[in-house]
Amino acid sequence: MGEAGLPVSPLAPAAFPDLPVIEGVEFASAAAGVKYRGRTDVTLIRIAEGAQIAGAFTRSATRAACVLDNQAKLARGGSADAGAAIIVNSGNANAFTGARGQESVDAVTGAVAAELGIPATHVFSSSTGVIGEPLPHERIVAIIGDLSRKLDPAGAADAARAIMTTDTFPKGASATLAGDGGEIRITGIAKGSGMIAPDMATMLVYIFTDAKIAAPLLQEVLDSGLGATFNAITVDSDTSTSDALILAATGRSAAAEITSLDSPAGQAFAGALQDVMRELAHLVVRDGEGATKFVEVRVTGAASDSDAKKVARAIADSPLVKTAIAGEDANWGRIVMAVGKSGAEADRDRLTIRFGDMILAENGWRAENYDEDRASDYMKNQELLIAVDLGLGQGAQTMWTCDLTHGYIDINADYRS
Amino acid sequence: MGEAGLPVSPLAPAAFPDLPVIEGVEFASAAAGVKYRGRTDVTLIRIAEGAQIAGAFTRSATRAACVLDNQAKLARGGSADAGAAIIVNSGNANAFTGARGQESVDAVTGAVAAELGIPATHVFSSSTGVIGEPLPHERIVAIIGDLSRKLDPAGAADAARAIMTTDTFPKGASATLAGDGGEIRITGIAKGSGMIAPDMATMLVYIFTDAKIAAPLLQEVLDSGLGATFNAITVDSDTSTSDALILAATGRSAAAEITSLDSPAGQAFAGALQDVMRELAHLVVRDGEGATKFVEVRVTGAASDSDAKKVARAIADSPLVKTAIAGEDANWGRIVMAVGKSGAEADRDRLTIRFGDMILAENGWRAENYDEDRASDYMKNQELLIAVDLGLGQGAQTMWTCDLTHGYIDINADYRS
Repeated sequence: MGEAGLPVSPLAPAAFPDLPVIEGVEFASAAAGVKYRGRTDVTLIRIAEGAQIAGAFTRSATRAACVLDNQAKLARGGSADAGAAIIVNSGNANAFTGARGQESVDAVTGAVAAELGIPATHVFSSSTGVIGEPLPHERIVAIIGDLSRKLDPAGAADAARAIMTTDTFPKGASATLAGDGGEIRITGIAKGSGMIAPDMATMLVYIFTDAKIAAPLLQEVLDSGLGATFNAITVDSDTSTSDALILAATGRSAAAEITSLDSPAGQAFAGALQDVMRELAHLVVRDGEGATKFVEVRVTGAASDSDAKKVARAIADSPLVKTAIAGEDANWGRIVMAVGKSGAEADRDRLTIRFGDMILAENGWRAENYDEDRASDYMKNQELLIAVDLGLGQGAQTMWTCDLTHGYIDINADYRS
Repeated sequence: MGEAGLPVSPLAPAAFPDLPVIEGVEFASAAAGVKYRGRTDVTLIRIAEGAQIAGAFTRSATRAACVLDNQAKLARGGSADAGAAIIVNSGNANAFTGARGQESVDAVTGAVAAELGIPATHVFSSSTGVIGEPLPHERIVAIIGDLSRKLDPAGAADAARAIMTTDTFPKGASATLAGDGGEIRITGIAKGSGMIAPDMATMLVYIFTDAKIAAPLLQEVLDSGLGATFNAITVDSDTSTSDALILAATGRSAAAEITSLDSPAGQAFAGALQDVMRELAHLVVRDGEGATKFVEVRVTGAASDSDAKKVARAIADSPLVKTAIAGEDANWGRIVMAVGKSGAEADRDRLTIRFGDMILAENGWRAENYDEDRASDYMKNQELLIAVDLGLGQGAQTMWTCDLTHGYIDINADYRS
């Protein structure tokens, strides 16, 4: 069973991965009883002096107090000469909690700053869980001393577990690349399962690297990776109030500083970071509420990338497409519907629809050698590819989604997340 | 049980209404065996000489052959001096059927034209059901003689039944108003249950009136009524390939011709027509796939009408809001989420959220006298009002939606519509 008492997703990886330790980053997790009982729900992360920080946050107009606070702090600069910290709680989102929301953020980040001797302007925070309930921040403040004493470079796996809400498994991913003069390591953790249609980052994601790279460049690498990773996933088309991704570089690798994204070293780092981001994003979809299928929606041949994105999103968000997938029904007519409603330029007679390597429809109609039995067999797979070529131009976008099942209704009609 | 073997929606009206006969309009329905067995599935409607026709159709880029055909015919003028006809089948949408789709439309409308002695340019058609299967139009052509012999001015109720797909009850609405010198009658029928997020009209709707009114003005009245009726409903955010509304005026009322929408007669007619359109639109939501709750989403105080529409649609389409309603959970935090993701201008501290006459949230937080028990009790109602005031301007939009239940998953994971 997962932390919220839900059965573990059938799409979960076999085990949590071994994440490389990032020199200069330590984690501690504990149970503050914010909402859940009998599990950890607060994580403290300390990042050593000289770290460079970048972030990406939801564009929701009703974003949570902690998100606004993080954005304000990062706007003043991501160079954390005196170190930085991140404090995260699950069980309560501290969103739509009025002026009291900021008071809670100040109380928690202030307590961390005092405990660790770090300026509060570099103490970031995230809260995830129910919206509109006051955050019992005194419960978090009360355990900060404990957390501080437990800080451990190998604590990432416990942290991934403490930040879960309706997640059924903890999520982590890493990469190690050969830098110029030494290895560079990247380690990330994430949580997210429902309310997933990121408009900037996703739920909560923390990625750490020992690369030497200045904050503005770090932010650039992060921004350039979002479109094909976190902004390319959807579980239910609902965008969270709390989406946040924080990326910290400690500079402790022996590898030379990365000073440009056009250099081979810069490109290698950007590629490895994007791999970690994509893997974490996929793990969120694999833990989509009620999910039983992991689906890649690959759109090509659109008049523009923006049109491709509209089509991919229309398919990946469509309740009718997602219920057909749940029912293992090769109902490609619903793909046609989604293309039609997307608002993108489309021409019936140039559209090609493939499931896996089978062409189902082309030239404006069902493919000549369409085989319903073969298509139905394909739908029994746990991992599916839906490919749409619009036959109009070079625009392309790939998105990842899951099916819409009774499990989603169970979780969301019965559980106040 | 409804025609597709589904239990009748708990939101269905007690009985099909008595629809006034419109002089000059006759209906006939029969079983052609297009897909379903043991029920009627084709309706023929004859409209007498001198009728004026207006229409509204989906803007889907993958719209069905019959929709494209209707649009091309209406573009040449809605004045049907030699009469008009509408032929509708359920069980097959004739959408994404390539060039063969238009051949089917030509075969069916040509046969009707020959049988009734009406120019094919004024024979309109609709098909609804599965997408991507060739329409067995010969089965429809074969029964057109039968249909012609059965034409009956009182056949609207049977027609409302013959056009159903996953609908669980037939849908009709009417109005009678005092015209200038005589009564004017309006009678309409509709079908629709899933794939409902009209972008122009809704599924299939046919409205008839004996008013004297020229086609361009009739089209104007129709267009002005769409925004607050059919374009203001959603079941599942999925827009059909086949949405079509045809409005025909026979001119047989004794009332004087309506020559302007600014006149009292014009305003009364527009108002009565909009009432019929709204009622039919509501019936579609009441028959939303799996629906157990009928929900009005009323957004006011937005910076613009367009912003109000974004917010109303974000709430009405949100799977998380709709599953909370299904679970009778007063989870207003999900309303905050939907406002935030909508893309409309919003200010947390000016937002007010009401369920019925209860204020749940205001001034950026939970209302002071918020009573969870009272809110939970309210959610047990079958008809719910969710009202959001953004506190920014005069923009307003009301939409209607239903809840998202296990029934929706059952219908769409197991039934190929």
